[in-house]
Amino acid sequence: MTDVDDLTARVLAGDRRALARALSVVEREGPEAAALLAALHPHTGHARLVGITGPPGAGKSTLADSLTREWRQRGHRVAVLAVDPTSPYSGGALLGDRIRMIGHAADPDVFIRSMATRGALGGLSRTAGDAGSVFDAAGFDTVLLETVGVGQDEVEIVRTADVAVVLTVPGLGDDVQALKAGLMEIADVHVVNKADREGADRAAAAIEGALALDGARDARAWVPPVLRTQATDGLGVATVVDAVEAHLTGPPERLAGRRRTRTEARLRDLLGRGLMTWVERDVLAAGEFEGWVTRVLQRETDPHAAAAALLARTRAGVRSTGQ
Amino acid sequence: MTDVDDLTARVLAGDRRALARALSVVEREGPEAAALLAALHPHTGHARLVGITGPPGAGKSTLADSLTREWRQRGHRVAVLAVDPTSPYSGGALLGDRIRMIGHAADPDVFIRSMATRGALGGLSRTAGDAGSVFDAAGFDTVLLETVGVGQDEVEIVRTADVAVVLTVPGLGDDVQALKAGLMEIADVHVVNKADREGADRAAAAIEGALALDGARDARAWVPPVLRTQATDGLGVATVVDAVEAHLTGPPERLAGRRRTRTEARLRDLLGRGLMTWVERDVLAAGEFEGWVTRVLQRETDPHAAAAALLARTRAGVRSTGQ
Repeated sequence: MTDVDDLTARVLAGDRRALARALSVVEREGPEAAALLAALHPHTGHARLVGITGPPGAGKSTLADSLTREWRQRGHRVAVLAVDPTSPYSGGALLGDRIRMIGHAADPDVFIRSMATRGALGGLSRTAGDAGSVFDAAGFDTVLLETVGVGQDEVEIVRTADVAVVLTVPGLGDDVQALKAGLMEIADVHVVNKADREGADRAAAAIEGALALDGARDARAWVPPVLRTQATDGLGVATVVDAVEAHLTGPPERLAGRRRTRTEARLRDLLGRGLMTWVERDVLAAGEFEGWVTRVLQRETDPHAAAAALLARTRAGVRSTGQ
Repeated sequence: MTDVDDLTARVLAGDRRALARALSVVEREGPEAAALLAALHPHTGHARLVGITGPPGAGKSTLADSLTREWRQRGHRVAVLAVDPTSPYSGGALLGDRIRMIGHAADPDVFIRSMATRGALGGLSRTAGDAGSVFDAAGFDTVLLETVGVGQDEVEIVRTADVAVVLTVPGLGDDVQALKAGLMEIADVHVVNKADREGADRAAAAIEGALALDGARDARAWVPPVLRTQATDGLGVATVVDAVEAHLTGPPERLAGRRRTRTEARLRDLLGRGLMTWVERDVLAAGEFEGWVTRVLQRETDPHAAAAALLARTRAGVRSTGQ
C-alpha cells in the first residue's frame, strides 16, 4: 500500500491526524496532493461549502464558532477553514487553531484549520477548494470557508462556495461602507454582526436599500435576507443557519450551478498550469523563454508579441515533435 | 491611421483625455488593449514604479498625495494608480478621483486614476502593470501604485514594483500586527504613519526588531529603513522620497532584477492565457471541455485526471492537425 493509499484510507476512516496530514499535503500542492485528491474525489460531493467573509474586525471567527456550535446542535459534523492573511491564525500559526479549538475541545466532530498561504504563488482559492474536498471526503457535513473580504482571491473563495454569507458590522467607517458595496453582489445571506452597537439599524437599512435597488433580480430568485447577530452571545445565529439551509435546499439547479462553476474553474486552472509546464519543459528549448524576456526588456519586442511568438512556437514545435 | 495608432500618438504627446481613454482600454483588456500596449512598449522603461501598501486606514491615499507633492517639487511628473477594492475610489468611482485631484487641480503633471477591478476575472495585477506601462509611455517619471495590503493580488502588485513601500499605523490592533508580519518580507521602505499617535515608538521598534532578526540578510544588501510620517501635514514625507530614491539608484542589478521578474510574470501570464484560448478554441471540440466538467461532477473522474486527459488530448490533437 502506497503512502497515498494509506493516507486516503485513514482520512476516509475519520482519523484526525491523517486529516491534518492530508490538509498539509494539499497545501504543499505537487504530485502527492494530486494523487491524494484523485483518491479522495469519489468520496466527495456530500459536504456543503459555506463561505463566510467580511472586513477585518467584523467578527468572522466568532461567527464561525457560533455557527459551528449551532450546526453541531443540529447533528452536523463541522469543519472550519480559516483563510485569512490578516489573521493571527495564518502563517502556519497552529497556536491560533488550538486556541479556537478550545471551545470545541472534546468534540471529535469539529475540525478547525487555518491556511498559511501568504506568499504562495497565487493558488489561494485553489488550495482552499482542495482543502474543502479533503473535509468533504472525511465525512464533514458542513465546511465553513472563512476569508477576509478584501482581495480578489479571498472573495472568489466565498463567491464560488455553495452559499456565501457576507458579514458586516456597524461603525467601521467609510472604508467598510465601500467594501460592502463590493461584496454586495456575492452575498446570499447578509449578516450585521455586533447588532447591539449603535448604527446597526442604519447598516441593515443600507443593505436592504441596496438590495431593493437591484432591479435585475428575477421575481422568483432568492432574495438575500439581512440578518442580525451578536455572535459572542450566539444571538441570531440560529436564524443565520436557517437562512443558509433554506438557500442550500432551494431549487437544485442553484446548488448544481455553483458546483459546476467551481469545477470549471478548477479544471481550467489545472489545465492551464499543465499546459505551461508542458510548454516550458517539453516544447521550448532551455533558455528560450528567458531569451524572450530579455528581448522584451530590451524593447526589441513587446510582451504581447513575445507571447504570440511563443504560442506559435508551441504549435509548430509540437507538430514537428509529433512526426 | 487606425484608432490605436491615433490613441498611441496622442498618449505619447501628453494628451490627458487620450491617457484616460488608454487606461480604460487597458482595463477592459482584449485585442485593442494588446495592440495599444504593443504600440506603447518601445516608449516605456523610463518611469519608476513605486508600490505603496498597508492595511485599510493606515493613510495610504494621504501618503500617496504627500509623496506626489514632494516628487512634484523635485520636478517629477507623477501618476497615481489606486488599486483598492476597499476604497471608495474603486468601482469606477470617478468622483473619488476627482476629489483627490482637487489638491493637484491646476497641475498638468499629476494624474490620478483608480482601478475598477472588483469582480474582474483575476487580472488585478495584470491590469495594474499595464496601466503602469501606459503612464510610463505617457512620460510620467514616477508612478505610485497604491494597493491595500490584504489579498495576494494586491500584495503582488507592490512586491513586483521597482520599490515597495509598506505603511503601517499605530494602534490598529492585533489584525494589523499579524498583517504586518505578512508584509514584512516585501518592504523596501517601512513607514509608520500617524507617528504622533500613541504607540508609534512601539510599532517602529517592532518592525526594527523583526528586521534585526532576519539573519538571512547579506551584509551588503539593502536594509529597509523604518521611517515615520504624519502624511496629513507632510511631516517626514521628504525622507520617504529620499529612501525610495536611494533604493532606486542603488546597484543597477537590483532594479534590473525587479523588472525581469515582472516581465517574466507578465509573459508567463500572457502565454498561459494564449495557450488556454488556443486549446479551448482550436484543439478541443465544442462541448469537450464541458463534458469533462460533467464527468468530474458525476465522480466518473477527478479534476487532476480530467486535466491530464485534456492535456494529452491537446498534444495528440495538435499532432494530427499538423500532419
